[in-house]
Amino acid sequence: MAPGRLFLVPSPLSEAPQERVIPGYVWESIAHIRHFAVEEERTARRFLSKGCFKGRIDTLSLYTVNEHSTAEQIERTAQVMLDGNDMALISEAGLPAVADPGAALVQIAHNHNVEIVPFVGPSSLMMALMSSGLNGQCFAFSGYIPVKSPERKARLQEMEARSARLHESEILIETPYRNDSLFADMLSTLKPATRLCIAADITGESQFIRTRSIAQWRKEPLSIGKRPCVFIFLA
Amino acid sequence: MAPGRLFLVPSPLSEAPQERVIPGYVWESIAHIRHFAVEEERTARRFLSKGCFKGRIDTLSLYTVNEHSTAEQIERTAQVMLDGNDMALISEAGLPAVADPGAALVQIAHNHNVEIVPFVGPSSLMMALMSSGLNGQCFAFSGYIPVKSPERKARLQEMEARSARLHESEILIETPYRNDSLFADMLSTLKPATRLCIAADITGESQFIRTRSIAQWRKEPLSIGKRPCVFIFLA
Repeated sequence: MAPGRLFLVPSPLSEAPQERVIPGYVWESIAHIRHFAVEEERTARRFLSKGCFKGRIDTLSLYTVNEHSTAEQIERTAQVMLDGNDMALISEAGLPAVADPGAALVQIAHNHNVEIVPFVGPSSLMMALMSSGLNGQCFAFSGYIPVKSPERKARLQEMEARSARLHESEILIETPYRNDSLFADMLSTLKPATRLCIAADITGESQFIRTRSIAQWRKEPLSIGKRPCVFIFLA
Repeated sequence: MAPGRLFLVPSPLSEAPQERVIPGYVWESIAHIRHFAVEEERTARRFLSKGCFKGRIDTLSLYTVNEHSTAEQIERTAQVMLDGNDMALISEAGLPAVADPGAALVQIAHNHNVEIVPFVGPSSLMMALMSSGLNGQCFAFSGYIPVKSPERKARLQEMEARSARLHESEILIETPYRNDSLFADMLSTLKPATRLCIAADITGESQFIRTRSIAQWRKEPLSIGKRPCVFIFLA
């Protein structure tokens, strides 16, 4: 039997109305789908209810695929697609499989010649990068860096050296409650001339996007708080 | 006088209808704008005509901002915004200032406390990455690499070593008419187990997204042709 297709469906980054960030074409294209691989069931149900699945959420099958999923669980979820069903992959916020789980499912799809259908939606990393004024021709995303200060500071210095050598923008994120401590370590560790963009609550009510040199940030106190935040710096 | 705002407006990657990839909210938000900093005037006019500016393109002022622009020209364009006018930045395809010109204008905006308003739209790099099944938790984009084979092969090997060391997905693009020669150099240079995703004509009629090991690609001939293409590999 021919396998189904795998649709990659972005989801909103903030509480703002979903239609601002998800083209209507996405809903038209996935209205027939019954099988969803999702990072978090509750968030996914809420999102799908706001789209074209209002009133028929209970007819859908949801499968959790996240950082706790075993290879075997992901294989089992993939089987639904290999059995001929179209499936959609949705992460908790933003693009599935980018700074979020899901790549393992996509890899299985490639191994079995499943057609992959990506859709347009919000990427906090790219919205921050385009807004930063920093180098968009050369950049790297390293995900989460160590949490403890000595290791974190050492890593920041490594990244700063690489940024200076390659003229590369360094993108990173942190669990929201650690934003301010990461920011403090950046201010005490990075060089005064290094430019740092803080992009918080992108697309949301309290959206804040500002690029300053480290020297300027030291004079301009900021509390990021627990808003989702992307940090980008260029030495 | 308070400066205007700078709106960052994505544009389509392919000939497919723009409403598939640009949320209607973008047009609602920029309908009042009269000043556009654009990578290429003709492409921008065509795109804006398909959106909310149909029939009134001639009332808009377009300013070219591309890789040939001098710092002085960009300063002059920025002045329009600093004089109190809302301005939009549009690149030829995809997100402005990401793998495209425009960052210099955004930087001036930050220097003058201009509010930056990014919108959602297609990013070929991220649509390729999410579709690749490769590592979306750690990746780097290096833009264009050297064109001549000896230098190009050396660079590919450097990138492959970095990919193996950091478990980092390496993203690159090439001028379309060089796609097939870059692909040939990848096949002859990268290790058999390195996985390579070819993502061509994303969102377009001939969309092609496939991830294979180099060993598999060597047995599976492919002509990419002059379609826009993103290459991603993970050692």
